[in-house]
Amino acid sequence: MTSDVSTQIHLASRPQGWPVEDDFSLVRVELPALREGEVRVRNEFVSVDPYMRGRMSDAPSYIPPFEVGEAMTGGAVGRVVASEDPRLPAGTLVLHDQGWRDLAQGPGEAFRPVPEVEGVPVSLHLGMLGLTGMTAYVGLTQVARLREGDSVFVSGAAGAVGTAVGQIARLLGASRVIGSAGGPEKAALLRERYGYDVALDYRAAPIREQLAEAAGEDGVDVYFDNVGGDHLEAALDVLNRGGRVAVCGAISGYNAGARAAGPDNLTNVIKNSLMLQGFTLGEYAGFAREFQERMGAWLAAGEIAYDETVVEGVENAVAAFLGMMRGENVGKMVVRI
Amino acid sequence: MTSDVSTQIHLASRPQGWPVEDDFSLVRVELPALREGEVRVRNEFVSVDPYMRGRMSDAPSYIPPFEVGEAMTGGAVGRVVASEDPRLPAGTLVLHDQGWRDLAQGPGEAFRPVPEVEGVPVSLHLGMLGLTGMTAYVGLTQVARLREGDSVFVSGAAGAVGTAVGQIARLLGASRVIGSAGGPEKAALLRERYGYDVALDYRAAPIREQLAEAAGEDGVDVYFDNVGGDHLEAALDVLNRGGRVAVCGAISGYNAGARAAGPDNLTNVIKNSLMLQGFTLGEYAGFAREFQERMGAWLAAGEIAYDETVVEGVENAVAAFLGMMRGENVGKMVVRI
Repeated sequence: MTSDVSTQIHLASRPQGWPVEDDFSLVRVELPALREGEVRVRNEFVSVDPYMRGRMSDAPSYIPPFEVGEAMTGGAVGRVVASEDPRLPAGTLVLHDQGWRDLAQGPGEAFRPVPEVEGVPVSLHLGMLGLTGMTAYVGLTQVARLREGDSVFVSGAAGAVGTAVGQIARLLGASRVIGSAGGPEKAALLRERYGYDVALDYRAAPIREQLAEAAGEDGVDVYFDNVGGDHLEAALDVLNRGGRVAVCGAISGYNAGARAAGPDNLTNVIKNSLMLQGFTLGEYAGFAREFQERMGAWLAAGEIAYDETVVEGVENAVAAFLGMMRGENVGKMVVRI
Repeated sequence: MTSDVSTQIHLASRPQGWPVEDDFSLVRVELPALREGEVRVRNEFVSVDPYMRGRMSDAPSYIPPFEVGEAMTGGAVGRVVASEDPRLPAGTLVLHDQGWRDLAQGPGEAFRPVPEVEGVPVSLHLGMLGLTGMTAYVGLTQVARLREGDSVFVSGAAGAVGTAVGQIARLLGASRVIGSAGGPEKAALLRERYGYDVALDYRAAPIREQLAEAAGEDGVDVYFDNVGGDHLEAALDVLNRGGRVAVCGAISGYNAGARAAGPDNLTNVIKNSLMLQGFTLGEYAGFAREFQERMGAWLAAGEIAYDETVVEGVENAVAAFLGMMRGENVGKMVVRI
């Protein structure tokens, strides 16, 4: 007999600026009996990601906001514990969107079975093998149109997407990969573990000066932007003619109360015929198979290093999310349930 | 016997902020005798264009700066008056790059013969039939990838490029074309002569408010940016998901002493998967024939209206340039020699 109480994080109020614990509540919900076609899943890992900050606000966006007073959603990987869907027997490992809780339940179509591969932690389906890795892959190949020999700059390089971007760029033939992260430990990791040629600690000195020096005469052809703000400004200074920016995130601005002024050097877009392209993964769903095949092969060959920052327990999911927003993670931040 | 004295505008000093008359000098230069393969050309019209402001500075750019103490260059159309190149007999109408002077001289290869078409003023080779019209055409078709049914916003809409953009967008199937210009007279011209559905006078009220109202529920799919600054910011507010910006000019910032802060809403690039692409015509030279054929046909069919603001005399070329930078022209600003 499985438990029928789901412990969940609800959005209690819309955060103003930086979210605080009080914006969330831990709620125990009794699940109804399974109906035909439904499954109940015990989550093993749930994901916390920067884009979720956007869903906590009700400004118009590409995905609807979380509703106040209801459970938040997000990537999760778990195991079927009770099933009224013959295609998903108990024990099946599934990927789905009912994160932020321990027990999930719903129609079988909302849960996608994923393979269990020896030596590959199941949590990677939330990270390097999942949307995180795919964001890095399509951002480089489809948005920034990375070419062999390109010089690449990546901000937020020690984050979940950033650790993937540097390594994928390398594997796809980038000539040089520069990354930025906060603090000397992360900078060291970039060089030692994630194949970055140059690692900049943005806390040590203005990123604009550091990047200008690091880029030097060669400049930068591709900028993968996870940060926005001063990092985008720094990149616009050093991008070569025909340079391309994959605008993936702007974590620097997500919690700003007032709107921050943009870069003071946008005229470089004209001077150097630069391209900036914002993107979300939804537009590139057609590349999922290509990505999974290549990433699977890279992981199997040991060509991709990954880290996870694991926080224990659904009751700590909010702390995990806030820590990730402050940059306390290395690699993908996940919550083990 | 033709004159051998060329009256020319030289760059006397690099402008700081807004150029002033003293940054230029009117110089009379005695031309040497023609050598084999050379021609002498009496200019009929010379062009003044926003991009020339950039060449007056020595900041790194896609084209080399004008040299202090030397004649400036730029588009010109004139007639061969003496020739040592059998391919270009006296009387040939030619397009070339030795503007800012009355008499030009050099190797025949630097002068391209252009047809004289009944009813089409030769000055159009500097405007609607030349680089100006082509900038509008490739900006819409290749950079912004205009699709039938797109809603379009154009800043600097009464300028040389802007008057072309609105009409070409219309001819290519745009559903709605909104333009901005300075002053009620220009705004009226946009509606009455240049086929804009909505004309905004940016002097009357903040462009951000006016554009939000004009775009309404439909939003904007394509923004053709001649202005930058507050206009780009206004456009970023209203661009629909997947919107595209052809970044052609930033006349608002060309004479700023200090760098101005960029738009405060760049995060919309991510939120709405926007694309911004800076461009210069050089990258699209391969489209010259396609453009000339289509524009020639449109002009012949009377489907394109055009205006020129004509200033008389090479000695007034600087005044013409400064007037153009202040927006005193409607349509293409040219100097009749």
